Amino acid sequence: MIIIMKPNSNEEQISSVVSYVRQHDLEVHLSTGKEVTIIGVVGNKDKINPEHLASMKDVERILPVTESYKLANKKFHPEPSTVKAGNTTIGPGNLTIMAGPCAVESEEQLMLIARAVKKAGATFLRGGAYKPRTSPYSFQGLEEEGLRYMQNAKKETGLSTICEVVSLEAIEAAVKYVDMIQIGARNMQNFILLKEAGRSGMPVLLKRGLSATIEEWLNAAEYIIAEGNPNVVLCERGIRTFETATRNTLDISCVPVLKEKTHLPVIIDPSHSTGSYKYVPSMAKAGVAAGADGLMIEVHNNPACALSDGPQSLTFEKFAKLTSELRPFCQLVERDF
Amino acid sequence: MIIIMKPNSNEEQISSVVSYVRQHDLEVHLSTGKEVTIIGVVGNKDKINPEHLASMKDVERILPVTESYKLANKKFHPEPSTVKAGNTTIGPGNLTIMAGPCAVESEEQLMLIARAVKKAGATFLRGGAYKPRTSPYSFQGLEEEGLRYMQNAKKETGLSTICEVVSLEAIEAAVKYVDMIQIGARNMQNFILLKEAGRSGMPVLLKRGLSATIEEWLNAAEYIIAEGNPNVVLCERGIRTFETATRNTLDISCVPVLKEKTHLPVIIDPSHSTGSYKYVPSMAKAGVAAGADGLMIEVHNNPACALSDGPQSLTFEKFAKLTSELRPFCQLVERDF
Amino acid sequence: MIIIMKPNSNEEQISSVVSYVRQHDLEVHLSTGKEVTIIGVVGNKDKINPEHLASMKDVERILPVTESYKLANKKFHPEPSTVKAGNTTIGPGNLTIMAGPCAVESEEQLMLIARAVKKAGATFLRGGAYKPRTSPYSFQGLEEEGLRYMQNAKKETGLSTICEVVSLEAIEAAVKYVDMIQIGARNMQNFILLKEAGRSGMPVLLKRGLSATIEEWLNAAEYIIAEGNPNVVLCERGIRTFETATRNTLDISCVPVLKEKTHLPVIIDPSHSTGSYKYVPSMAKAGVAAGADGLMIEVHNNPACALSDGPQSLTFEKFAKLTSELRPFCQLVERDF
Amino acid sequence: MIIIMKPNSNEEQISSVVSYVRQHDLEVHLSTGKEVTIIGVVGNKDKINPEHLASMKDVERILPVTESYKLANKKFHPEPSTVKAGNTTIGPGNLTIMAGPCAVESEEQLMLIARAVKKAGATFLRGGAYKPRTSPYSFQGLEEEGLRYMQNAKKETGLSTICEVVSLEAIEAAVKYVDMIQIGARNMQNFILLKEAGRSGMPVLLKRGLSATIEEWLNAAEYIIAEGNPNVVLCERGIRTFETATRNTLDISCVPVLKEKTHLPVIIDPSHSTGSYKYVPSMAKAGVAAGADGLMIEVHNNPACALSDGPQSLTFEKFAKLTSELRPFCQLVERDF
Repeated sequence: MIIIMKPNSNEEQISSVVSYVRQHDLEVHLSTGKEVTIIGVVGNKDKINPEHLASMKDVERILPVTESYKLANKKFHPEPSTVKAGNTTIGPGNLTIMAGPCAVESEEQLMLIARAVKKAGATFLRGGAYKPRTSPYSFQGLEEEGLRYMQNAKKETGLSTICEVVSLEAIEAAVKYVDMIQIGARNMQNFILLKEAGRSGMPVLLKRGLSATIEEWLNAAEYIIAEGNPNVVLCERGIRTFETATRNTLDISCVPVLKEKTHLPVIIDPSHSTGSYKYVPSMAKAGVAAGADGLMIEVHNNPACALSDGPQSLTFEKFAKLTSELRPFCQLVERDF
Repeated sequence: MIIIMKPNSNEEQISSVVSYVRQHDLEVHLSTGKEVTIIGVVGNKDKINPEHLASMKDVERILPVTESYKLANKKFHPEPSTVKAGNTTIGPGNLTIMAGPCAVESEEQLMLIARAVKKAGATFLRGGAYKPRTSPYSFQGLEEEGLRYMQNAKKETGLSTICEVVSLEAIEAAVKYVDMIQIGARNMQNFILLKEAGRSGMPVLLKRGLSATIEEWLNAAEYIIAEGNPNVVLCERGIRTFETATRNTLDISCVPVLKEKTHLPVIIDPSHSTGSYKYVPSMAKAGVAAGADGLMIEVHNNPACALSDGPQSLTFEKFAKLTSELRPFCQLVERDF
Repeated sequence: MIIIMKPNSNEEQISSVVSYVRQHDLEVHLSTGKEVTIIGVVGNKDKINPEHLASMKDVERILPVTESYKLANKKFHPEPSTVKAGNTTIGPGNLTIMAGPCAVESEEQLMLIARAVKKAGATFLRGGAYKPRTSPYSFQGLEEEGLRYMQNAKKETGLSTICEVVSLEAIEAAVKYVDMIQIGARNMQNFILLKEAGRSGMPVLLKRGLSATIEEWLNAAEYIIAEGNPNVVLCERGIRTFETATRNTLDISCVPVLKEKTHLPVIIDPSHSTGSYKYVPSMAKAGVAAGADGLMIEVHNNPACALSDGPQSLTFEKFAKLTSELRPFCQLVERDF
Repeated sequence: MIIIMKPNSNEEQISSVVSYVRQHDLEVHLSTGKEVTIIGVVGNKDKINPEHLASMKDVERILPVTESYKLANKKFHPEPSTVKAGNTTIGPGNLTIMAGPCAVESEEQLMLIARAVKKAGATFLRGGAYKPRTSPYSFQGLEEEGLRYMQNAKKETGLSTICEVVSLEAIEAAVKYVDMIQIGARNMQNFILLKEAGRSGMPVLLKRGLSATIEEWLNAAEYIIAEGNPNVVLCERGIRTFETATRNTLDISCVPVLKEKTHLPVIIDPSHSTGSYKYVPSMAKAGVAAGADGLMIEVHNNPACALSDGPQSLTFEKFAKLTSELRPFCQLVERDF
């Protein structure tokens, strides 16, 4: 931690900051410049509250030097992690494709889609049973019934399954039926839910919040891992910007940034981020080329009749075409699927 | 709802969209232009899923004409609402000042602050007992113990009390001890929590999400009111932008926008939005001048030692100075405090 | 300047950074921590290129400690500046109201408006003769003819005059006819134009770019002042965010931030930022309450027929009502108008 | 154009809007709903000012149905364009790699870099002679001298050349020495410069503004083409968001969006957008996979000593590695380089 004093701070103020730091068993390195004085703090910073320091007289700014997340941090875990869920391993060497409808609508629909995505090469079936919707009057999901259909689809196809959870009740139910749970963008900083997801021991896909920084995202992952559950996969699904031609802006550059900062696998969701099926194939390829560990893609038997997010769903035909086009890209980046 | 067809859509596609709409007992108004055909949909749009339409062939765009929120909508409730909580009425004619520490730290601290803010004119004591923190390693609040201190502070001072809730358990506890609950920015789209807040019947202060649009915010309020609880107050606390000189950007223009769109009261939080006590007084005055129904301001007995958000807290002296400076502004906008 | 080394940098890399700094006649303060080493650089940093340092091996980050703008910086010029233009003084003690049409359309129109805004208390007539428009097919302004009308309006009413310039030619023309020139948001980083505005010696109103940080804005002001022209006034006109209910988001908190960082006067434009006449009065009051030195407001004799930006223009009646409502706010903040 | 009236507008107001439209020789299609009345306007909308309409009584909103750009619009020019500059053709079937230093520093430096990038497969040499810098005290470029070095580098290597222009003088000089001119992000809405670039007849690379929407960007291109110069190439270089881990956020999804809306070629700049050489290779591959027509990459003989933007420059070795890794990606997307 570095403390920058205001220009022309007097000796007394500087001393008082220095003694405050030393009282907390931390070492001080003092740099006295013509314009500013800088105080370097060395030692275990957990002992001190940076906000106390920030509000001391003549302190201009506090600069953190190390990240607040530890368990998610690549510095302390240099090898990339793999996360196992159902029959699937997410991580280096694999490209995991999660596909399925935004919302589970009926057992027939889900079976149809499960068979189609399996045939095209997906190893994971996604399907929402609990839908967080902006308006209380929109369709909110089939809940536990939907989870049961997911379980049946797994039995028939062997696909691993993933479902979003929005509450502690949903986690309890999901544990019984599916292989992996998803925390959605709107709940990325629902810390109660994160802790419970951690305690469940289930593999967790953590979507990035609509305006979350990468640092906040990794801190949210830390909440899960800190409960003893290291099975976290990150999923970029677009951030909110002023651009309106796409629903959100897919921040693909988060892939190399995350590969530098964390050991956790990273998945790209080109469906929710762009909001249009037309843009999904090119962004899926871009995600693979950028080094992502997987893709989450919406597929529907009849996009025109989907109960939610129809415009961004691929038909079976378009999805099969996409996976066949993706194969040579996977070879280039040395990933199997 | 308006459906805009793609340029040069063929007759067949247009017919198929038209019959889809008519099948749902809605009326169609057709405008056939040289470049584009436009289909106006008249009737109860709840019968139809706009996303189905959006994914039909040759449909370019669907434009909603009316807002999805009803109970929060000024169109259907033209008079401004008042919300009562404890001994306080929030709404026209009043300027409600909520003040107190970011986090309740001890009973002594809370009592000291409660007396000071009461003396300076606040009618509401705020204090966090459940703290949603970015890092799992930061101080997370005293929980139920903190709520008990709030209750004691109320008994002594007569101040109404408000506390943030982050889980169903927190709501259950808060109901017993405080007068109003707060849903924080990070939970604005935690729909489970919103519904439970609605069911509690308690007055609710709903903070705007860090990157929420006003429309999403009002839809979040709708979740609460739809459970039969009309006692919702909105609180602007800054939105996320690229500017870094302030922690967030206080969107004061939301005040006149909300006054046009909704009947719910609006409160401005100049402390969290700016992140610095130095900017609080001018932004508090700006909020009052813009027509806000109240202010939420952080006050601490010793900002340099606050367990969270010290740099943005006012001292007792600064807070008393601010309230005395605010009085003539309140007279100008015809609000008592 | 502070140089933060990567965790576990080896001695050799640290030495090589240290010698690089010393070669540039700068002093080094070394803080060697368990996790990271920090190198404080003391002396005249203009001698060194921070980007060189940033790309040296094992350097993690370079942190600037002092701002790059000097002449605009309050640290080196603690007293607030006043800027004189025509018959008007902008700065402490005054509230300068600039009012008029977005675009000058005809001499009759301009005269009508000039008389009306003068009567209501404005001291400045604004009117665009060179319009930067998003589409090349939109009305682009009357150019020099428009400036001549401005001059005539000044002769009759005694109002000071201001006009946007978009090119060197426009500056040359404006110098002959008006009292102050305006650099628009889209040209805030048109450095050639800034330098030329500096060389003209004219008072300059510098609008903030649509996504400019306050730091970039002050650096843009520095371009003008560095040419020997200290007569710069800043104008906040809304920044681009994801919110769509208003055209842009008026960042009123820039007022106290600027009052802390610079001595230059600050003006608020509630018309362009909100994009709607309905929101102008409350935001004008908020701006005054926040401590702004003035307001720029669009007024039109017939907003429904304005050639540009009609929806945000006030009628004469609404403008006169606003200025009369503003007077008591000005008294509270001790400003005359 | 669609006019949406306010709920419960009276007959008189509706009639007055309808007659206004008819007076401008446009046809009206009226949809009278229970909640709202919608007026479709059919015909040549250039005859009418949407802003007039927007400010008429009881008008709620005006919705444009067609884009304001025509010459850049794919609807009126369905085949993708190719742009020739020097010995290079930009467009379908090719992947154009523009490489070189951010700033031209000396003739020796430029020659060294030109030979290296040529050897690695680039067909274009980039190099800034006029640098738009945030601070007036930063290095601003060698100007005409730098252009001369570019010309010499072309003579020796046969590479095509491109240089940013910031003023009319710079355009006049550039025409004499280089093959293509670049309009930088900060000048994307410097309409005077756009027009002059159009009149020059030179191929133009138009970078996207830091917070420009795709629609504004295409309107900026329209300014150039409207002067009779169709040789425009678009370049995405990152947009401004709240994320700080990268300098800007590279909006790769603009590639499929642009491919749908315009016939102009699109280039991706992974250097300026990410701000770090470490992220350049993965984002370059992502850009190619997404369908971009080319890449603009910073390369420097000694990044640690670059006069600007060192941290984002590739060394010769890293650049050669990248181009060899890009070749198989180019084969997959059927582009030569």
